[in-house]
Amino acid sequence: MYRLGIDLGGTNIKAGIVNEKHELLYQCSEPTDVGRTAEYTADRIACLIRKLMEESKITREEISFLGIGSPGAIDIKRGIVLFSNNFGWDNVPLTEMLHSRLSFPVLMANDAQCALIGELAAGAAAGHKNVVLITLGTGVGGSILTDGKLLNYEKGGGILGHTVIHKNGRKCSCGRRGCLEAYGSASALIQTAEKCISENPHSLLAEYAEKQGGVTGKTVFDAAKEQDITAQNIIKEYISDLGEGIANIINIFRPDKILIGGGISNQKEDLISPLTDYVYEQCFAKDKLYLPKIECAALGNTAGIIGAAALEQYID
Amino acid sequence: MYRLGIDLGGTNIKAGIVNEKHELLYQCSEPTDVGRTAEYTADRIACLIRKLMEESKITREEISFLGIGSPGAIDIKRGIVLFSNNFGWDNVPLTEMLHSRLSFPVLMANDAQCALIGELAAGAAAGHKNVVLITLGTGVGGSILTDGKLLNYEKGGGILGHTVIHKNGRKCSCGRRGCLEAYGSASALIQTAEKCISENPHSLLAEYAEKQGGVTGKTVFDAAKEQDITAQNIIKEYISDLGEGIANIINIFRPDKILIGGGISNQKEDLISPLTDYVYEQCFAKDKLYLPKIECAALGNTAGIIGAAALEQYID
Repeated sequence: MYRLGIDLGGTNIKAGIVNEKHELLYQCSEPTDVGRTAEYTADRIACLIRKLMEESKITREEISFLGIGSPGAIDIKRGIVLFSNNFGWDNVPLTEMLHSRLSFPVLMANDAQCALIGELAAGAAAGHKNVVLITLGTGVGGSILTDGKLLNYEKGGGILGHTVIHKNGRKCSCGRRGCLEAYGSASALIQTAEKCISENPHSLLAEYAEKQGGVTGKTVFDAAKEQDITAQNIIKEYISDLGEGIANIINIFRPDKILIGGGISNQKEDLISPLTDYVYEQCFAKDKLYLPKIECAALGNTAGIIGAAALEQYID
Repeated sequence: MYRLGIDLGGTNIKAGIVNEKHELLYQCSEPTDVGRTAEYTADRIACLIRKLMEESKITREEISFLGIGSPGAIDIKRGIVLFSNNFGWDNVPLTEMLHSRLSFPVLMANDAQCALIGELAAGAAAGHKNVVLITLGTGVGGSILTDGKLLNYEKGGGILGHTVIHKNGRKCSCGRRGCLEAYGSASALIQTAEKCISENPHSLLAEYAEKQGGVTGKTVFDAAKEQDITAQNIIKEYISDLGEGIANIINIFRPDKILIGGGISNQKEDLISPLTDYVYEQCFAKDKLYLPKIECAALGNTAGIIGAAALEQYID
């Protein structure tokens, strides 16, 4: 039997067919056309799935279920998007809407939760029962697996990026001040770098940024590797902020492993090694309790589809 | 059938017999005599239970199981105290040690977890499946119920008090800087008040402290109620710090309810009302997602025994 996985993003809807070994056999995608109604989006997803099935010549009878990862706060058990800022949705019963269009059994989780399940099924979390995934991109996302199952938040939750580490600190996109996201996201790193470049226009960092036509997370890591002091200080502060947030998460969940995904995770050991050093110093009872390995997620862009298609195994 | 509950504290061991309605029928206690080996403590617990059974004339056959709440990081499933700072214990298989002495089935959880289970069985959490208890005493303790079960931390966890809300802030007893405990505990409130008294020796707060022979949490709340500006500022800052920590917890777990226990919870509405106002302002998607009611725990000192005696129902 095959499974269908959907990764519903703010930009694209990606759909895939996955086999029982969690191998992604076929995939396709199309623009989300965000800002329209949930009914419209459900129709678009249904179209995409029919197209995928036609092109792959896999029939309804060969498919056991459809899993979907959606942004926002999800009630997994009832299959409802409680709230999605990006989509402007409130209490949307998306699983039911897809079931009525496609007649498959449908399961839904948050997009970060699906990415974690993907890593668990076929990536860096394989074999573990307690894992936290943190994604460092436009925002800081997160998802939590405890005892082999996704935590279900009936009323929303799992918003790891919007936990304050600097009371009265930087203004965050959520309206609060001092959130982990305002310090640990790729966007936060870039903003800090842009500010430092305007203050240090002759730094190597400024030179790299000009050459590359702008700053990305990579620009800052590259300049730091070439001993640029401005960039090194930015990275040091970035890692300490991110490290405080991760140590908080470890003290709360003490998982087997922390996985780091999102754009910044492309820095691999240049990120992981100093981050691990910082985090281990901050963990409660660091000499007595287990310290989780911190490592990069393995599946990249396909984690969400593979995870959505494996949801059945990881939801109670 | 009856159940036995043990609340193992740093000062006293309390034991009780509880019926199926979660009513505490008999109880007794004796000093813990802390700092000795786990074997010694297990013997003391066994003695106390035999005494309780003899005095209550309840026989072995009438007792279904023994539950125990212990300080520290507990692996619920394996019944092991992973680490307890107060007791100086590492990887102590306390349930097995008690089982071999008493032959009852034994279950163990953290003391704060037992208090939460007590509140769930017969107190302020009754009827709910997702609740977080936060205790404001010498430290800031916490425990988390999700989907009707205690989160089990195989490797330690649930250390809500040692999550940083003020990076590079006050030194905490755990070695880290800026933890919730360093701002939200009764001890933190008292320390701030003592500092303010030395700076404002003519304040009403200073006068109250002198009359009462020292500062407690109550001293500060009392002076604030009488319009003492020094005390009001302390309370305002205290509530905002505590509120940041609680908003973080809501964003992660979004429970049905937040319960507040420990000494400071005696301030009832003088604490709960301004705290709720502050927290609700800080919650993610505050206009869209459910906002948990914040209220005081109901059972006080007996929550731990009643909860320990009810563990069987709330552990997977």
